[in-house]
Amino acid sequence: MITIAVDAMGGDIGPEVTIAGSALALKRYSDMRLIFYGVAQKVEPFFKKYPELSDCILYATQTATKMDEKPSQALRNGRGKSSMWYALEAVKRGEADACVSAGNTGALMAMSYFCLRMIAEAERPGIAGIWPTLRGESIVLDIGATIGADADQLVDFAVMGAGMFRALYHVKKPTVGLLNVGVEEVKGLEEIRKASHILRTVQSESLEYKGFVEGNDIGSGAVDVVVTEGFVGNVALKTAEGTICQAARILADAMRQSFLSRMGYFIASGAFRRFQKKLDPRKVNGGVLLGLNGVVIKSHGGTDSEGFASALRIGYEMVKNELLSKIVTDLCHFHEKSSILSVLQENVE
Amino acid sequence: MITIAVDAMGGDIGPEVTIAGSALALKRYSDMRLIFYGVAQKVEPFFKKYPELSDCILYATQTATKMDEKPSQALRNGRGKSSMWYALEAVKRGEADACVSAGNTGALMAMSYFCLRMIAEAERPGIAGIWPTLRGESIVLDIGATIGADADQLVDFAVMGAGMFRALYHVKKPTVGLLNVGVEEVKGLEEIRKASHILRTVQSESLEYKGFVEGNDIGSGAVDVVVTEGFVGNVALKTAEGTICQAARILADAMRQSFLSRMGYFIASGAFRRFQKKLDPRKVNGGVLLGLNGVVIKSHGGTDSEGFASALRIGYEMVKNELLSKIVTDLCHFHEKSSILSVLQENVE
Repeated sequence: MITIAVDAMGGDIGPEVTIAGSALALKRYSDMRLIFYGVAQKVEPFFKKYPELSDCILYATQTATKMDEKPSQALRNGRGKSSMWYALEAVKRGEADACVSAGNTGALMAMSYFCLRMIAEAERPGIAGIWPTLRGESIVLDIGATIGADADQLVDFAVMGAGMFRALYHVKKPTVGLLNVGVEEVKGLEEIRKASHILRTVQSESLEYKGFVEGNDIGSGAVDVVVTEGFVGNVALKTAEGTICQAARILADAMRQSFLSRMGYFIASGAFRRFQKKLDPRKVNGGVLLGLNGVVIKSHGGTDSEGFASALRIGYEMVKNELLSKIVTDLCHFHEKSSILSVLQENVE
Repeated sequence: MITIAVDAMGGDIGPEVTIAGSALALKRYSDMRLIFYGVAQKVEPFFKKYPELSDCILYATQTATKMDEKPSQALRNGRGKSSMWYALEAVKRGEADACVSAGNTGALMAMSYFCLRMIAEAERPGIAGIWPTLRGESIVLDIGATIGADADQLVDFAVMGAGMFRALYHVKKPTVGLLNVGVEEVKGLEEIRKASHILRTVQSESLEYKGFVEGNDIGSGAVDVVVTEGFVGNVALKTAEGTICQAARILADAMRQSFLSRMGYFIASGAFRRFQKKLDPRKVNGGVLLGLNGVVIKSHGGTDSEGFASALRIGYEMVKNELLSKIVTDLCHFHEKSSILSVLQENVE
């Protein structure tokens, strides 16, 4: 049985979506158990609507973290009080295996950091997102946990991202690329070149380092894991989302323009559905907070029940496939090998 | 008459594309004059094919800058010798009003910088690209001239980008946004917040500052000019290009899958052509190097003749609409107002 603590209050819409999404997920996974945290009077009306939830417990909390609270504010107002905090604490106390929230990202980061703390092997948390590509799906991190990252942090992101890819897709040695403005070794920022050097030298057994990749390589699926710092990752993700919306709008407008095009659209509607399905952002909704002492999933705030169910699925998969122990082992091995190599290097010099 | 110096050797394919594109542009603009620089034996065979070029002069150069040369190498090997250098020098000597090259970006940046020098008012060059949006077209800069930018440089990019937007689209006061990871004033990097403060305080007459924008706001056309530093701009641009390719491939695959979808595709083929046309990257091919003492246009290296003709059109428009004097005036006004305000501020304190 895998138990997930659900912050029922998070998201732009709140309980209506989180509860409906939870009911969907429970129907799909017989070994999934959910426990809910939320303000009783807001959650209960939806809770009662779904027979799938009849066995679930709802813990009533005093408050909910607002979507526009700053991380420091959210922490002050929500610590020991809000649904988000309680859901995280359930993971800390071992009552749940993972926490899923569609709430305020900054608040979730800050609370996770204070409640669960980092694993000893990682310095900084990262948020890993699943990116649909031409080859399937890739993982991109950090998509916005922190701004800026030094070479060691980028290397840790690479190892953790590869661990997550293995947990999700059962690939033995995922390919990893560092996001840069060119593929030549001389290009880009000092930190990125240094991280590239480390990844190339250490030759980890848990990943296959492929060098630099560029923005257009993400969508083509050139590598399984794309590593970058949070500012660039966030801009890249949102730019891609914006571009998909834009293309879909232009296509829809073009199809509406004449009688012939409307007829063609009608006849090929199955193909359009396949197209939409392939690019449906809900399928891959759920950023995984990596580096923490616990599995925490951030669902998109604006998603619907189907999207929230995906976030629950990702949490479930992460636990089932032992993400945490994979990451800890991989980081340990990597740091060990890396420090042996640097001692050898120093002796040679 | 507007004269453009063409580096006939630049690009992945070279003269075949640049010469064909030049012939296309000459047919379209009766007051455009082109002068060519290139290795004679490579350019002449194509040159003779187009009657439109019969009045044009081809200056034979010894070498051509290679696409994979590092900027420093290109400068050493090409200074006073390569077609790229000569085309830039024609602008410097006043023999041409603008230079267009599809050559190596780093080399073009370095050579432009050494040959033409910066205008006194700007500290650092930026490359501005035209981005098709749902509302029309926006300008995004810097898309890869330099990595990193401080607050003052970002502000200069804002003023120069707005000047370019006015020159291209004849809008009196273009709207400007700073690319960030959130729209709240507290978000993002120190430099970006500082630049935002300056743009808000100075209230330039040549642009309307709208605050922060996010990655998805670029494609929606939320503002006319999107300002960011070169690393992020480059990743965003290539990510969007990659996403368009990906969406187009998925759509094409979906349409091929069944008899019905192929029939629908056939019937609605006009709509698909409209869709493609709207997102055709060739239409907006041509990055403008801003901050230099001269108009320099970088065409995409992998473009075709239609795309190269677009780059020539952009050069032509920039000259016709007096980009350079607009930028110099705007920057002067902005810096003047900004320094008066800071003197006043100091007196108040």
